[in-house]
Amino acid sequence: MAPRLTAAEVKGVFEKISNWGRWGKDDQRGALNFITPQKRAAAARLAQTGEIVSLAQPLSTQTALDNPQPVQHMMLHAGSPAPASLDFFAIASHGMAFTHLDALCHVFWQGKMYNGFSSSEIGRWGASKCSIDVARDGVISRGVLLDIPKLKKVDFLELREAIYPEDLEAAEKAEGVHVEEGDVLLLRIGRHVRKKLKGPWDPRREGMAGLDASCLPWLHERRIAVQGCDGVSDVSPSPYGSEIIFPIHIGTLPMMGVHLIDNADLDPLAATCARLGRYEFLFTMGPLILERGTASPVNPIAVF
Amino acid sequence: MAPRLTAAEVKGVFEKISNWGRWGKDDQRGALNFITPQKRAAAARLAQTGEIVSLAQPLSTQTALDNPQPVQHMMLHAGSPAPASLDFFAIASHGMAFTHLDALCHVFWQGKMYNGFSSSEIGRWGASKCSIDVARDGVISRGVLLDIPKLKKVDFLELREAIYPEDLEAAEKAEGVHVEEGDVLLLRIGRHVRKKLKGPWDPRREGMAGLDASCLPWLHERRIAVQGCDGVSDVSPSPYGSEIIFPIHIGTLPMMGVHLIDNADLDPLAATCARLGRYEFLFTMGPLILERGTASPVNPIAVF
Amino acid sequence: MAPRLTAAEVKGVFEKISNWGRWGKDDQRGALNFITPQKRAAAARLAQTGEIVSLAQPLSTQTALDNPQPVQHMMLHAGSPAPASLDFFAIASHGMAFTHLDALCHVFWQGKMYNGFSSSEIGRWGASKCSIDVARDGVISRGVLLDIPKLKKVDFLELREAIYPEDLEAAEKAEGVHVEEGDVLLLRIGRHVRKKLKGPWDPRREGMAGLDASCLPWLHERRIAVQGCDGVSDVSPSPYGSEIIFPIHIGTLPMMGVHLIDNADLDPLAATCARLGRYEFLFTMGPLILERGTASPVNPIAVF
Amino acid sequence: MAPRLTAAEVKGVFEKISNWGRWGKDDQRGALNFITPQKRAAAARLAQTGEIVSLAQPLSTQTALDNPQPVQHMMLHAGSPAPASLDFFAIASHGMAFTHLDALCHVFWQGKMYNGFSSSEIGRWGASKCSIDVARDGVISRGVLLDIPKLKKVDFLELREAIYPEDLEAAEKAEGVHVEEGDVLLLRIGRHVRKKLKGPWDPRREGMAGLDASCLPWLHERRIAVQGCDGVSDVSPSPYGSEIIFPIHIGTLPMMGVHLIDNADLDPLAATCARLGRYEFLFTMGPLILERGTASPVNPIAVF
Repeated sequence: MAPRLTAAEVKGVFEKISNWGRWGKDDQRGALNFITPQKRAAAARLAQTGEIVSLAQPLSTQTALDNPQPVQHMMLHAGSPAPASLDFFAIASHGMAFTHLDALCHVFWQGKMYNGFSSSEIGRWGASKCSIDVARDGVISRGVLLDIPKLKKVDFLELREAIYPEDLEAAEKAEGVHVEEGDVLLLRIGRHVRKKLKGPWDPRREGMAGLDASCLPWLHERRIAVQGCDGVSDVSPSPYGSEIIFPIHIGTLPMMGVHLIDNADLDPLAATCARLGRYEFLFTMGPLILERGTASPVNPIAVF
Repeated sequence: MAPRLTAAEVKGVFEKISNWGRWGKDDQRGALNFITPQKRAAAARLAQTGEIVSLAQPLSTQTALDNPQPVQHMMLHAGSPAPASLDFFAIASHGMAFTHLDALCHVFWQGKMYNGFSSSEIGRWGASKCSIDVARDGVISRGVLLDIPKLKKVDFLELREAIYPEDLEAAEKAEGVHVEEGDVLLLRIGRHVRKKLKGPWDPRREGMAGLDASCLPWLHERRIAVQGCDGVSDVSPSPYGSEIIFPIHIGTLPMMGVHLIDNADLDPLAATCARLGRYEFLFTMGPLILERGTASPVNPIAVF
Repeated sequence: MAPRLTAAEVKGVFEKISNWGRWGKDDQRGALNFITPQKRAAAARLAQTGEIVSLAQPLSTQTALDNPQPVQHMMLHAGSPAPASLDFFAIASHGMAFTHLDALCHVFWQGKMYNGFSSSEIGRWGASKCSIDVARDGVISRGVLLDIPKLKKVDFLELREAIYPEDLEAAEKAEGVHVEEGDVLLLRIGRHVRKKLKGPWDPRREGMAGLDASCLPWLHERRIAVQGCDGVSDVSPSPYGSEIIFPIHIGTLPMMGVHLIDNADLDPLAATCARLGRYEFLFTMGPLILERGTASPVNPIAVF
Repeated sequence: MAPRLTAAEVKGVFEKISNWGRWGKDDQRGALNFITPQKRAAAARLAQTGEIVSLAQPLSTQTALDNPQPVQHMMLHAGSPAPASLDFFAIASHGMAFTHLDALCHVFWQGKMYNGFSSSEIGRWGASKCSIDVARDGVISRGVLLDIPKLKKVDFLELREAIYPEDLEAAEKAEGVHVEEGDVLLLRIGRHVRKKLKGPWDPRREGMAGLDASCLPWLHERRIAVQGCDGVSDVSPSPYGSEIIFPIHIGTLPMMGVHLIDNADLDPLAATCARLGRYEFLFTMGPLILERGTASPVNPIAVF
């Protein structure tokens, strides 16, 4: 499946979808600004049955092809006969096996972060702009799932399989939803089903399904607040090589100021949506407040 | 302020408030079972203005009297001229400076966890029962704040100052709320105001305000699902010495199966509640899914 | 191969070989005191050809049956185009796959460390007595290798195979060496050869070859300074069950004050000794100065 | 004190002192090749009294101006009533407060490591060339201390104070030693005395005494194997700004293939040398075998 756009065209798209300055020159929250109190209150009204679903994978401690740097988990007290147990864990949050929220400082385009902040705002001791703690008050909004394997009547999308704007619109139509301003858009590619059926693989070498760069204008028009995926949103490997390694990451994080949720587990969510016949819900997420951090592991919860 | 009960009486209370077997002999979720879908749906209806407040402290990386084991945060890529930034952090979640959710396996009473599971279910590789991932689907319910310094017309409670059941009821009356089945009860002692005014101290040596053991039957009658505090819920040091080090921890975690949120920051919440004249709200929290873990750092979000 | 001694007899041995008080009641260095400047100067004279051999395994970062908690190694800068590379590692030093020096505070007997210090000298923040930094000035002495598989004309000792005092003496005779006061005694069981030929195993479940408890008086008489092994010196599982889990660990660390090197790799050393026909050499080791620590990863170097 | 050379001249020096190809095009050990077995055997003959001195600082766990990323040390078992204690530590080895050995892959010049290997040999998972484990067999050689504050009759060198070739030669003359092929050269600037007298400072902002770039040809002529310092060998900040940030680091690591010991503690060594009237000794060091690593914390031991 060939890319729709040339590298030059993608660069042009980056310019067009830029939200730099949209919320003032000092803004570091980007498209989170689309989530107004009214949006949240409306989203809360979607919580009708009170059913809940986690969108996160467990924090795996096992080395694997897709988890080269597993979480290190150790007991500090191991219980009996002591009266308590304590533990410790260490995580490189951006790992391919961890459900995490990317901060807007995570990726640069031409040496710039969102809103034109220089990448030199990041040093050995962390990010002084656009760090993950800009989301410290949490992300509460409407969530919408677009289940692409269901649309395509397959178990999962193949590695390197690209999703185009017409797929997003077809999914909307099939599901009876419309992605709107301030939404958290959750895109399912069926990654974990593929792993169960075909075994683990190294996404850095073999790639993963995801959005073609031509979806960026669509995401921009819909004014989403956050983009999430059971993959990493980008189709990989990049059709543009090292010139534009992750076009969706660049188009969202630095250009539009849209935070990304990578490596979610959307299978239980998809099952619930299918069962209830409803693809919108109350989305809740409280990223850890790691000042100067570039990401946080998260466990987003959907409420129906 | 003397304890209301003798050590023997507290032990008797432990027996009376036990929820062992209440949800079946295999249950590991304890009082989270009080939160029904109906409870969640009703809680969501409290989200009316869409205003949001975080209940967490930042994850501090600085050594301090009350943070002897700070979070270790390191950059894996520090940005420019690389096209991305990555980081890593390590946390001993139970630290006194970290807002975290205690798993039911965290504390034992007479060698037992909640529901009678043996403390030997915990070994060097973690907890095989009652680990933090029993809360993997999140905690969505009604939250209620009881602001004790406001009730007592003080800036903060003093170290070692105990809170009694009549204080809880007086706070309910003053605030116009009633703690009910399935609620997340948040108790404010004003710890962070005290720190700002008087400087940091070591709670292990100098103590902290919190609940007297006589509050346990009250918590049990109200059938709360989760108990949280800007301290650690227990008044300390324990009036019972090493015989019963943390009576509230024991009464809640192993006996009632009530998860605890320790070291929250409830000051912004208190300000919002006071401003809106409303002490109930939608409470949302997604603990990290650390299988076999004894706790998770959390950032609970209140929605008004 | 049955144990030579009953549990009661082993406990009697512990009493007899105790070095408590031998170097004063405040001493924390134990048998390191056997290494005098004269001993070191004599050991240095063994360095004649200048050939060198490492006695350590690499610090493995891979999860394995015998490495459940691998070293966590991460790049902090990954080089190009940055002008430097930096990294980070984290280690639970006592891991079965790591060559490390046990501090005298690592194991207790009846609640006591070496020289009668209470195990309560160890708290959540470390060891206030007998920590690894008592060896901060390094261990420089004569090293002696006893190669038991070579003596027995086998590739490796079997799991659970015990070594007795007569084996030690037969090895001395075969090799033409005599273990003496202040020596670092290195005992080879052929563990890594077994792993190469038969694959990895979990020593905690399946055991490992090592010294029978009846060797303790022999070690005491010879006044060794440090005991090392490619296993953990103890035969395992213990013939005494949980009553005396690791008799050699107890006899050496708390009773005799003899530091232990666990999980060395003695295969290159054995090859060099065999080739040169010489089983004594200059032994050098500089443990990391981790104050309050219970161990240090080490890379001891033998000089011929 | 002005630099002796222009930036252009320093770059010319880099070319002239290059050891690329000197030990074959595949060599990764660099100047360690100067240490022959004969050199080691001769060095061992310097161990005459058997007195020993550590050259390392303790691994500090406290945040400080000169230790922004302290060692994280945690107890995994804290002893009583358990029969053992275990711990864990984590270290970013290159920290300014840690005595460590820099691997030859640590610094690049114009995108190249020692022997012309590309800096792209380093990736997120470590260094595939010139990693710290090239020194896995240890460094055993003659050590020589040049004590510059003693030469200059001061307690310590001032921040930004440069050392020139004539200082090195004057120190040699005053001490009666001559730095020769295969030596480990230890340069004392008195850093820790300054800290005791004047308090801690941030070397990255305020600088530190060290070698002027004009010393590089001298180091090259003397064919040293390893360069060590109680600072970081380089005078800082660099007189050449970002054009040549650490001329001594570049001249030694990538150009000459000389490993560096940073942040040693040479005060006890200086005291011993002065007392014995002898500035040469047996130097021993066993770096941890961290494959693909860029450094190792070390505790080098001098034997007199």
